[in-house]
Amino acid sequence: MAKDFSSRSENYSQWYNDLVIKADLAENSAVRGCMVIKPYGYAIWEKMQAALDKMFKDTGHVNAYFPIFIPKSFFSKEASHVEGFAKECAVVTHYRLKNDPDGKGIIVDENAKLEEELIVRPTSETIIWDTYRNWIKSYRDLPLLINQWANVVRWEMRTRLFLRTAEFLWQEGHTAHATAEEAIQETERMLDVYADFAENWMAVPVLKGVKSPNERFAGAVETYCIEALMQDGKALQAGTSHFLGQNFAKAFEVQYLSKENKLEYVWATSWGVSTRLMGALIMAHSDDNGLVIPPRLAPTQVVIIPIYKNDEQLKAITDKITPIINNLKAKGISVKYDDRDTQKPGWKFNEYEFKGVPVRLAIGPRDLENGTVEVSRRDTLEKSVYQLLDIETKIEHLLHSIQENLYQKALDFRENMTSKADTWEEFVDLLDNKGGFIYAHWDGTPETEQRIKEETKATIRCIPLNAKQEEGKCILTGKPSNKRVVFARAY
Amino acid sequence: MAKDFSSRSENYSQWYNDLVIKADLAENSAVRGCMVIKPYGYAIWEKMQAALDKMFKDTGHVNAYFPIFIPKSFFSKEASHVEGFAKECAVVTHYRLKNDPDGKGIIVDENAKLEEELIVRPTSETIIWDTYRNWIKSYRDLPLLINQWANVVRWEMRTRLFLRTAEFLWQEGHTAHATAEEAIQETERMLDVYADFAENWMAVPVLKGVKSPNERFAGAVETYCIEALMQDGKALQAGTSHFLGQNFAKAFEVQYLSKENKLEYVWATSWGVSTRLMGALIMAHSDDNGLVIPPRLAPTQVVIIPIYKNDEQLKAITDKITPIINNLKAKGISVKYDDRDTQKPGWKFNEYEFKGVPVRLAIGPRDLENGTVEVSRRDTLEKSVYQLLDIETKIEHLLHSIQENLYQKALDFRENMTSKADTWEEFVDLLDNKGGFIYAHWDGTPETEQRIKEETKATIRCIPLNAKQEEGKCILTGKPSNKRVVFARAY
Repeated sequence: MAKDFSSRSENYSQWYNDLVIKADLAENSAVRGCMVIKPYGYAIWEKMQAALDKMFKDTGHVNAYFPIFIPKSFFSKEASHVEGFAKECAVVTHYRLKNDPDGKGIIVDENAKLEEELIVRPTSETIIWDTYRNWIKSYRDLPLLINQWANVVRWEMRTRLFLRTAEFLWQEGHTAHATAEEAIQETERMLDVYADFAENWMAVPVLKGVKSPNERFAGAVETYCIEALMQDGKALQAGTSHFLGQNFAKAFEVQYLSKENKLEYVWATSWGVSTRLMGALIMAHSDDNGLVIPPRLAPTQVVIIPIYKNDEQLKAITDKITPIINNLKAKGISVKYDDRDTQKPGWKFNEYEFKGVPVRLAIGPRDLENGTVEVSRRDTLEKSVYQLLDIETKIEHLLHSIQENLYQKALDFRENMTSKADTWEEFVDLLDNKGGFIYAHWDGTPETEQRIKEETKATIRCIPLNAKQEEGKCILTGKPSNKRVVFARAY
Repeated sequence: MAKDFSSRSENYSQWYNDLVIKADLAENSAVRGCMVIKPYGYAIWEKMQAALDKMFKDTGHVNAYFPIFIPKSFFSKEASHVEGFAKECAVVTHYRLKNDPDGKGIIVDENAKLEEELIVRPTSETIIWDTYRNWIKSYRDLPLLINQWANVVRWEMRTRLFLRTAEFLWQEGHTAHATAEEAIQETERMLDVYADFAENWMAVPVLKGVKSPNERFAGAVETYCIEALMQDGKALQAGTSHFLGQNFAKAFEVQYLSKENKLEYVWATSWGVSTRLMGALIMAHSDDNGLVIPPRLAPTQVVIIPIYKNDEQLKAITDKITPIINNLKAKGISVKYDDRDTQKPGWKFNEYEFKGVPVRLAIGPRDLENGTVEVSRRDTLEKSVYQLLDIETKIEHLLHSIQENLYQKALDFRENMTSKADTWEEFVDLLDNKGGFIYAHWDGTPETEQRIKEETKATIRCIPLNAKQEEGKCILTGKPSNKRVVFARAY
């Protein structure tokens, strides 16, 4: 299974690609840039979806579904949005095929040309705000707190499984509010939900901040983000939450009658995370032995492998283990009992290690005699012999402990990979020889940010929400600055 | 709320449209033929999805995700499939927009023309079987039991919310098997799953059968279906399960090495249900007072409305009702306590009646004194006064009873609306004056089926799986027939 598999130090990028393919998470399809998410990868995504969906509902949101197609003209309505999104996209121009009169398969029927082209949604602000116009009449209709789970398409030239694909799956929240304050609160609330999910489910620590104007979402007044650090020292934007001001309300004429009986434009937010999180999850924890999945997102949390030489031994093991499996399931733990006789235990050990199953139990005839079981944890690869007595509680604790340990390990890594740079030389040296997050002063201008990006490929990942006031000088221009921002090379 | 709302007898079709719009289930979007599924409609669809998804997993299936785009040439590979699906569809021809040099918004960039057009999937057999070619090498890789939840697009000319839309949501199962027998078993198993879901969740009785060759899925060897009857006496196909033989395996060259070390083509099935089920659910049970939703699919199963004149009364009611709400929730019952002071009780009664909430509780100061509560059930509109003692168990029973009653009512209706016709005159008379399912003899030819359709608009809904052998004469041609098939006019 793990043969022909690059190590992280050898070639991190290849290691990632190998892992995604060989662990059966996803693969490239026959359609350029579009991926197939395979059952094992999709099972992880389903667990992410379920957790996020519950968090959205617990914060008062409901789901709905809007069309996949957006009339071309909608993009022109919000001036900066059109620049950001109406470029590389899939354009539907016709609605019929016909048999080729020359008998060479099927061709586009030129008589079935659309009057106005339709764009496969790259994001849904425009079609949703066009819809909201009819839903929002009075302050009583606000706030409107809606989320959509959907596929979107952005015609990316260079694609990578999960990290950057032409089609990807995501959720997009689109909310409408009576006041700017309320909309900003919502934007921050959802950023907190994302950070909570990243840290407590994915076991990935994140920085919370706002983007510099250069990196803002097209059409937003402010873009909040969470930024994670991968094991190669590169940053990955794991989620964004946008305060859209009244830009879309004005573009789509969405007004409400206030309590004071005045017609006002509505305030908006949007926020999203995507299957890109799968890339973050894989890169944050996995190792040279394969995937490492935090227990809370693992499709199989515990695998049990019987070690036996004959049917009698297998039966004795199965009899012993069946009530334990039922008890584990009753605790909400997902368990797989792999008693296949088509594969040897050693093969199974490798397989589940490679697939990142958090806990592996192996039990043979001697264990039965001793009332024990061998317990291996995927995060540290440590093995222990446990007494079977109350094994369910011990496993439950072990899963919690693995979840905590993965987070702590990722946090330690990030802390070690976080530096300060006070001069240009320090900055470049850190980028080239260490990587990670670099806190540095910046003069606040888009021009300087752009020059730094061109010279070093590093971008401002965020202006941290908790940034301290500190006098300093821009690392590039030496101009005054009053707080440090976070730079990194990024995915 | 229910003002300007047609009755069923007045205009059944208008009644349905009014209900979908006014009950906030869905609406037409700015994109021709594409609907917006509103939060209340989507909440019902989510409950359907959750129930079906669990049934699929319980029968050994896993979910995955395949691209939304299919290369045009893929459709030509399976001869009959291309006839059925490569016609009215959304065709992507370009991948970039640019600013109009004349300054009139944005236009398609003619330099960004795709070499091969992409079709927005109308169904995914082709792209999936192209993928399966690499996944299936040996008998050990079989069976492959995969489902996908996705959006699909078929360019329908005449659309109706939920029943027929250009874009709709659905699930499509695609399985691969080593033998024909196993594939047929799978096809029948999934038909049973659909029938189970329709009857036990949607409370809609269905006929199980196979389609006549005319009505078969394009590319199938046999199409199984479940057929439901709506309140206007028209049939609605609620789900299909296809035995695809080796058609797609041959078209996409999917072969496996058997246990006997021989290269064999794989046997296939596919099966799907869609947001069309929402239309069936609405039309099967709802009445002139609005929606009626079976308890197992109702987003809110119980609404509690306090009747009060002042804050003190409201507080007393809330104190009494809060533990009851918690107990109901602990039983897995979804409860809404509507203590808003912006709307009067009478308005709330109408609102929840119109939205089809199965059980309504109303409680006022006198109820508190008496230890009672007024309980109304949506299906029969009956009101009773219940003692509060152990009210949670009584509500739980009532919900079951409503679920059963709705099914029984629908079954009674269908039985009353099922007839036999032995002559053409009887057949036409039944169609024109009664509607419903008509069991009649047919000579088994596509030509006769086509003529019957042209003359009466009735189609063969199915050849029932449980059809008895019975000698008879075709109602149209008088030719011999050995079993009755089911005719109806249909959605």
